[in-house]
Amino acid sequence: MSLLIKNAIIVTMNRKRDIFRGDVFVEDDCITRMGKLDDYTADTIIDAKGQVLLPGFIQSHVHLCQVLFRGMADDLELLDWLKQRIWPLEGSHDEESLYYSALLGCAELLRGGTTSIIDMGTVRHTESIFNAVQQTGIRYLGGKCLMDHGDLPPTMIDSTEKALQESLELYHRWNNYDNGRIRYALCPRFAVSCSDNLLRQTASLAQQYQIPVHTHASENREEIKLVEKERGMHNIIYLDKLGLCNNRLVLAHCIHLYGDEMKILAHKQVNIAHCPSANLKLGSGIAPIPSLLNMGAQVSLGGDGAPCNNNLNMFMEMRLASLIQKPFYGPRSMPAPTVLEMATLGGAKAMGLEKEIGSLEEGKKADMVLINLDGWHTRPQNAASFYSQLVYQAHASDVTATIVNGRLLMQNGHVLTIDEEKLKTAVEASIKRISQRAGLR
Amino acid sequence: MSLLIKNAIIVTMNRKRDIFRGDVFVEDDCITRMGKLDDYTADTIIDAKGQVLLPGFIQSHVHLCQVLFRGMADDLELLDWLKQRIWPLEGSHDEESLYYSALLGCAELLRGGTTSIIDMGTVRHTESIFNAVQQTGIRYLGGKCLMDHGDLPPTMIDSTEKALQESLELYHRWNNYDNGRIRYALCPRFAVSCSDNLLRQTASLAQQYQIPVHTHASENREEIKLVEKERGMHNIIYLDKLGLCNNRLVLAHCIHLYGDEMKILAHKQVNIAHCPSANLKLGSGIAPIPSLLNMGAQVSLGGDGAPCNNNLNMFMEMRLASLIQKPFYGPRSMPAPTVLEMATLGGAKAMGLEKEIGSLEEGKKADMVLINLDGWHTRPQNAASFYSQLVYQAHASDVTATIVNGRLLMQNGHVLTIDEEKLKTAVEASIKRISQRAGLR
Repeated sequence: MSLLIKNAIIVTMNRKRDIFRGDVFVEDDCITRMGKLDDYTADTIIDAKGQVLLPGFIQSHVHLCQVLFRGMADDLELLDWLKQRIWPLEGSHDEESLYYSALLGCAELLRGGTTSIIDMGTVRHTESIFNAVQQTGIRYLGGKCLMDHGDLPPTMIDSTEKALQESLELYHRWNNYDNGRIRYALCPRFAVSCSDNLLRQTASLAQQYQIPVHTHASENREEIKLVEKERGMHNIIYLDKLGLCNNRLVLAHCIHLYGDEMKILAHKQVNIAHCPSANLKLGSGIAPIPSLLNMGAQVSLGGDGAPCNNNLNMFMEMRLASLIQKPFYGPRSMPAPTVLEMATLGGAKAMGLEKEIGSLEEGKKADMVLINLDGWHTRPQNAASFYSQLVYQAHASDVTATIVNGRLLMQNGHVLTIDEEKLKTAVEASIKRISQRAGLR
Repeated sequence: MSLLIKNAIIVTMNRKRDIFRGDVFVEDDCITRMGKLDDYTADTIIDAKGQVLLPGFIQSHVHLCQVLFRGMADDLELLDWLKQRIWPLEGSHDEESLYYSALLGCAELLRGGTTSIIDMGTVRHTESIFNAVQQTGIRYLGGKCLMDHGDLPPTMIDSTEKALQESLELYHRWNNYDNGRIRYALCPRFAVSCSDNLLRQTASLAQQYQIPVHTHASENREEIKLVEKERGMHNIIYLDKLGLCNNRLVLAHCIHLYGDEMKILAHKQVNIAHCPSANLKLGSGIAPIPSLLNMGAQVSLGGDGAPCNNNLNMFMEMRLASLIQKPFYGPRSMPAPTVLEMATLGGAKAMGLEKEIGSLEEGKKADMVLINLDGWHTRPQNAASFYSQLVYQAHASDVTATIVNGRLLMQNGHVLTIDEEKLKTAVEASIKRISQRAGLR
């Protein structure tokens, strides 16, 4: 199967950051040729005249299992948000509701140009999430959420053994599925809900199987106090002592950090998943991203959960990642090219796939999006840089095509791998059922 | 002429904040009947099934003259931004470029559901802005920008007399044009670029003719220091001493305030135009809006200038107005209903039109927008409140119709009062010409 994108403005994000007008030829799942390809033909040809072709966005922290709860947990702080709404709702999922939650998330993500995600699953029925991502064609790294400690609803807690055993079963079933499009990550939720034993065994399994680890850390002041009280040291120090801090760790948030913690994150190339909307909406704070970047840390971006955002939209996160730092670090901090790097190359590193995705280059996977800069909000077209247009001006609705592994998954607003009408009905029925089950309706 | 909107979810923003499914009947420019109007017919009928009908958004601070400069002044602090880019560019406008700048701004605003604006004009050719707003049908309050003081390009400075005389000429020509849709405001830029004499005479004319005054204040730390140095007192105290602080004053930004200044703003019911995106992007700071609201101050929202935002999009401003306060005032601060009030009723007060616009009620002007909550990013549809959906989830691209004075100005993405193809070409030619003239290309 071959695909030819013609006449695009190609924002490559390659090492030289080339931007040129031209064509991209894709064979199977890879970009095999870029340039002026007048003599080429292909099974599918898209004329992208006037549109920007960009590497697909990579969101390094999302919760597909929470998409159904959008708008049901506004205006709460993290721990209340978890205890009063999110855990009861997650714990009320059934196989079907979880499948549709994940499917809805993928629909929104693909609609807005996100081609890859790092996801935190939930405690039960995680298989449903894999079924949904398998169907939609999105690139995925994630796994079952591990919790064995603390004051949790019975449906949200496992024994340490069960948590890890189920993870390994899912790992063997799904890791490297579809030629590596789906990969497994060990996902302890956060130190507050994981025993020391669970975290130690997670670190050991991650090392043994070379599996990425995806967790949350230092999002909230109460959280870091709790960790310090229970484990006797600062949160990141603790994770490091367990052997978790390395370039296979994806750590969401990293807002409340001590200086020595920042040094560890940078030095060990831990992948920080910065989630600006969610950090604001939960009142958590503003992560010191310019300082972390300055220290050489790896930063990527994510929408987090629909109920704490309330979108899963890389354009929102990019714009906000730039804007929120400027009152504190000055207006020159976090310029558009830096932010676009985080949204593409940064995400690729977080997935451990920097050799395969994150930029448009011959030999890389054909994960890419077409963006129309034809709206009034992106005009004039010839005065601003493409970086400025993409980061400060463009919207999710400007994406006209989303391609993963050379496969067209979204075109002109429609997700091609989903029965859209069925999904619309199913999400309403699902959220009604599980919110009743959770006693929230 | 009559218009009937049928089967909408009507978010009224009336005193009781009624929300109901029903119909709205419009005769000429007014809403004359709301409810279940099965027997009604009209010249134009819109079936709005499943869509939200909302009072049109009112942006209380924009610069139509700057829309052409979008993306040309990123990552600069206010005073550098003005001196290095905005003033040279504004000063290079000709009649035609200013007309197309204003037209482009109106196109973006109407596309995204903004029905009314309070605008700051520029120094020369202000007539062009009035010609553009006259054509597009948007509701407008604004006027020529007054500057007679400080280190300004020659094309951006007037004598005090000329500034005021031209203002009065424009006032007589345009105030109450089209049955009050267009109204005039005296627009001294800010204390830094206005002599004491100019501000005194502005206050006196405003009193004599009962004209609103629209200006900027306390956006930037350097600015307030300059005012204090030159005028010997704090910025707001100074404006108050001049007699400007009353409910006909619209004051953009109000970020860096002393306690006694906050009291004056609240006590005198000055209309604060809060511009969260621009305040972040210029690194200016975060206005203490929850404190001001708590003191009883009047707050509304605006997109400010395209080159410091880079959109003119009420959905962005609403979402951000809520989110940026939460890390400082807690996650329960600035809930969605409060923010939606600022975007509608708050703006109506700023325009001095709270009896005519800002809510959907029988007898009020038919300024309203239809919003489709059919996207993946606003699903599930039945779990969240409409306020949460509108403030935290919806986007400008979800607006399907924009109506001012009962007249349909935008439908399905197209602005009906503008030759869209001509505008697209003209904005590119215009910005090329004036950036060359400004020596910026």
